[in-house]
Amino acid sequence: MRKDLIATRQAIEQGHIHAQAVAEECLALAQSDSCQHAFIQLTPECLNKSDSTQALQKRPMAGLAVSIKDLFDVQGQVTAAGSVVLQGQAPASVDSQAVARLRAAGAGLIGRTNMVEFAFSGVGVNPHHGTPAAWDALTNSAAGSTFEPRVPGGSSSGAAVSVATGAAFIGLGSDTGGSIRIPAALNGLVGFKNTARSVPTQGALPLSTTLDTVCAMTRSVRDTILAHEILSARKVPSAHRPLPHYRLAVVNNLMQDHMDPHVTRAFERSLVTLRAAGAQIEEIALPELTELGTMMSAGGFSPAESFAWHQHLLAAHADQYDPRVAQRIQLGAPMKAHQYIDLVNARSAWIRRVEKALLGYDAILSPTTPITAPKLADVAPGAERDAEFFRVNGLLLRNTSAINTLDGCAISLPCHQAGDLPVGLMAWHAAMHDDTVLQLALLLEPLLQAH
Amino acid sequence: MRKDLIATRQAIEQGHIHAQAVAEECLALAQSDSCQHAFIQLTPECLNKSDSTQALQKRPMAGLAVSIKDLFDVQGQVTAAGSVVLQGQAPASVDSQAVARLRAAGAGLIGRTNMVEFAFSGVGVNPHHGTPAAWDALTNSAAGSTFEPRVPGGSSSGAAVSVATGAAFIGLGSDTGGSIRIPAALNGLVGFKNTARSVPTQGALPLSTTLDTVCAMTRSVRDTILAHEILSARKVPSAHRPLPHYRLAVVNNLMQDHMDPHVTRAFERSLVTLRAAGAQIEEIALPELTELGTMMSAGGFSPAESFAWHQHLLAAHADQYDPRVAQRIQLGAPMKAHQYIDLVNARSAWIRRVEKALLGYDAILSPTTPITAPKLADVAPGAERDAEFFRVNGLLLRNTSAINTLDGCAISLPCHQAGDLPVGLMAWHAAMHDDTVLQLALLLEPLLQAH
Repeated sequence: MRKDLIATRQAIEQGHIHAQAVAEECLALAQSDSCQHAFIQLTPECLNKSDSTQALQKRPMAGLAVSIKDLFDVQGQVTAAGSVVLQGQAPASVDSQAVARLRAAGAGLIGRTNMVEFAFSGVGVNPHHGTPAAWDALTNSAAGSTFEPRVPGGSSSGAAVSVATGAAFIGLGSDTGGSIRIPAALNGLVGFKNTARSVPTQGALPLSTTLDTVCAMTRSVRDTILAHEILSARKVPSAHRPLPHYRLAVVNNLMQDHMDPHVTRAFERSLVTLRAAGAQIEEIALPELTELGTMMSAGGFSPAESFAWHQHLLAAHADQYDPRVAQRIQLGAPMKAHQYIDLVNARSAWIRRVEKALLGYDAILSPTTPITAPKLADVAPGAERDAEFFRVNGLLLRNTSAINTLDGCAISLPCHQAGDLPVGLMAWHAAMHDDTVLQLALLLEPLLQAH
Repeated sequence: MRKDLIATRQAIEQGHIHAQAVAEECLALAQSDSCQHAFIQLTPECLNKSDSTQALQKRPMAGLAVSIKDLFDVQGQVTAAGSVVLQGQAPASVDSQAVARLRAAGAGLIGRTNMVEFAFSGVGVNPHHGTPAAWDALTNSAAGSTFEPRVPGGSSSGAAVSVATGAAFIGLGSDTGGSIRIPAALNGLVGFKNTARSVPTQGALPLSTTLDTVCAMTRSVRDTILAHEILSARKVPSAHRPLPHYRLAVVNNLMQDHMDPHVTRAFERSLVTLRAAGAQIEEIALPELTELGTMMSAGGFSPAESFAWHQHLLAAHADQYDPRVAQRIQLGAPMKAHQYIDLVNARSAWIRRVEKALLGYDAILSPTTPITAPKLADVAPGAERDAEFFRVNGLLLRNTSAINTLDGCAISLPCHQAGDLPVGLMAWHAAMHDDTVLQLALLLEPLLQAH
């Protein structure tokens, strides 16, 4: 993995590399084969920024490259959210809040990243713009002629590939059910889903107005903290608590079901490593997790809320949608208002019960996803692969989406051994525990890298 | 009108009257003919409190009588919300937040007040417990044998009568579409609907979880400020701005349509009086008000949100409901989730536009209701009077409910001449302008009383 943002900024400050050379390298990587289908549009502002005023380079982002998921408004660009149906829209007249905050911090926008159409799945396939391959340097280079591309996870698919390959230091994305954490896990990155209220969603095309979270993925925890501080316009305090003083838990129901052998091995080894470093990790049951299926049985938030947004567009242009996406949005059409209100109320009561159950723990550890990246050939567009696609999609979203229902926060950290397929370890808690989760992640990261 | 709470507290403090005598008089009034049907249950705690420790009498409420609308939990009492269908429920195990705050301030609970079943109309009729008569001392005493009772307005019908007759100093109620302000207007009281988020609704039986507001009515503006400070657990700052420094407006569309001659006379005279005192009152159009009908065409918030709460109870016991209430709750059954979500989004956008239109004004003045209290004979229970009931209900709620849609705040002040039927003048604004509206009301009150 390439240098993170903070190391690169230091190298520029110390004169070891030139900002312009960094910008050119990012752009070259964005145009390379490893970034195929990762970008919908390149907007190499970082080239202009890298040699501009010193003042800009003194800002936290120092002019370094950031990629923007196609669902964010950027002044002068069309916000199409990975679709073709919106490609003819007028360009945005102002930046979304998140983009404005990144720019104010000195970010250099390198381009708009590919995504699952309208952010509506966790697999990462896009039939209009192609599907970028999950980045896994070792597997890719060793595979030679037998290389079989794997999906990058979604919905922030291009964002992950842009950061993993080195084309961008921060990938701005969104997470409604796992859209930051799933691609982070499948590409060996750090992905942080903050508490949704922390960052304004203004200027981001909505999937679920209840669950949508604006957040980012990076190559290190310290970069993730920097990105979160910029996006949420606040500081994460430093902590001086050693790892053994954190009270951690693993949940022994639901979140560890149906793990594939790669994930089982990486997750179990991670727990051994962390315990050897003194971590206190209890095993707990969280029976509330098994209620999620019943709670969502009328469809959940995303179908009804996205149908409300799409209903007229979908009625006129259903043929221009990814059929897998259109099908799931249509599921929201018949839901009754009282079912939706029941869901809102049931979720509130569920959050209160889970928060009570988590009292006294600093964070919970789970596999981010129970499986590693599926092969593209198994889930590529095509009705004959829809059953496999939806099976895999359900597995990928299972653990991460529970945290969105909780209105919580969660970070995914790479926890696989070098040479294995990437696996994510998710540290999570309820709403507004963001600082503790981030502070803990700073302690976990070097342990998980070394093991 | 009898002394307000603050004057009574001062008289007790100065030794002019005994607390015990005040409590006994309140109880006698609560049991008198003028309070017929106003209380569902008397709980004369004020008798016990009036002679208890001096410490209690030093609290803001000084042990004085407060009435509690039947939809609030009071420890040990059944919360039936004016219904019979809930009368067999278990008593509440803890006080609602609002009741707990009143008790902590030294309130003496005198009883549970009658209300429209489940708070679902603005007229004030209750077929199970009878309908209290609007209090209007002059009309009542002059009418003699030809006295024709008028409805008190709703849904906080008994609350208004309890305060107007003198049985209670504060009537705790709720306002989802006007349920505090309409009865305040029809009974010559002060009624304040705060910004909904100011007071917790915990322990109050819901009508619309989006619009419900916990608030109170009193016999003076200063008592209303005291009640609001207790319920919202904060202080309203004193203002030293003279009336001519407030920028006021009247809205010349919708809110002044279909006024009856009593209301027209009282409202027009009030404007003359206020202008003569130096008030700057502009006439403005607020075209957004005419969009409300379309916005609510799928039913609005209350039917769907109350159907979600009532669906199982109503399926099993529809025959025990007031048919007029059951009918309106049933209107929420067919509403679709996406229509509800559209409504949530349309309301947010509408609020932003109205707030923009009101920028620069300190308050808007409107008639609280366009009509005075209808005669009970015209709207009493009975299918043959349903058409008239729903016509009157729509008129009574029209102006007040716009402020709930706005998520705003509004105070109703008596503005009729002595001897006329009570008429309310409503001063209102958007969310979180509560302090300004209350401070202005302190200036308007003596002018409107003298005219």
